[in-house]
Amino acid sequence: MICGFEIGIPPARVWKGWTDPATLMQWFFPRPWKVVECAIDLRPGGVFRTVMQSPDGETMPASAGTYLLIEPERRLVWTNALGPGFRPNPSPKNASTDFFFVVDLTLAALPDGGTSYTATVMHQDEAGRLAHEAMGFYEGWGIALDQLVELAA
Amino acid sequence: MICGFEIGIPPARVWKGWTDPATLMQWFFPRPWKVVECAIDLRPGGVFRTVMQSPDGETMPASAGTYLLIEPERRLVWTNALGPGFRPNPSPKNASTDFFFVVDLTLAALPDGGTSYTATVMHQDEAGRLAHEAMGFYEGWGIALDQLVELAA
Repeated sequence: MICGFEIGIPPARVWKGWTDPATLMQWFFPRPWKVVECAIDLRPGGVFRTVMQSPDGETMPASAGTYLLIEPERRLVWTNALGPGFRPNPSPKNASTDFFFVVDLTLAALPDGGTSYTATVMHQDEAGRLAHEAMGFYEGWGIALDQLVELAA
Repeated sequence: MICGFEIGIPPARVWKGWTDPATLMQWFFPRPWKVVECAIDLRPGGVFRTVMQSPDGETMPASAGTYLLIEPERRLVWTNALGPGFRPNPSPKNASTDFFFVVDLTLAALPDGGTSYTATVMHQDEAGRLAHEAMGFYEGWGIALDQLVELAA
């Protein structure tokens, strides 16, 4: 599945939002959810891990993912199917809330100084895609991105 | 799991054996098994796919994998957990014969012109590792590598 947006901040700000832990923690999940931990080692095979906290204060650590492709300010590909060092993660136990995916994020500078932002999210199968959609993928990614734009503007 | 060998051909020959389809088809599975098709697009996210044929003539296509890291003549990392374009592959149906893995192959030149060859193979869990071992991983990779050395010597 794909979501695309034209936003009013330049690719460098978007890149920082995705790759600097302190910045990412301020926008990555729609409020009142928040990120309470973030680990980033920005190289292929390096860790990408976030811990989110629900409005009730429950923390929900996600399995550590890893980066697959890094083209600064242009493209970032990461997955939760592999962890640091490219080690395969165990398959998700509960298919309705947990699933492997790969995020392929592309950024392109717009003439007005903004960014054309496209996130392609790929799953193992239709079930994974539907589960992600049911969790509010489209709305959630849009809201979070608005938070980044607000933060970086 | 890891297997390491010191072999009498230089890293360039090993690299060609792993990355040139016509060369790979001559050594990649222990004879009388053979590779009857091989697709290689040597870039991160590019396809790596082989079709092997049993001694009885039965062809056994493996799901298309992809490359994760490419450092010519030094390191090659690929997986069957993701396919071309980094798209996640469906989980294996039969855990005893099919499992996700990542191969991290490292090569280092030896003073005598040979190569220190180390293959680290990572699985999702103990079951995957044991299944791979039961299929004859250690013996099979050694025999296949001997075939490459013989071919390239």
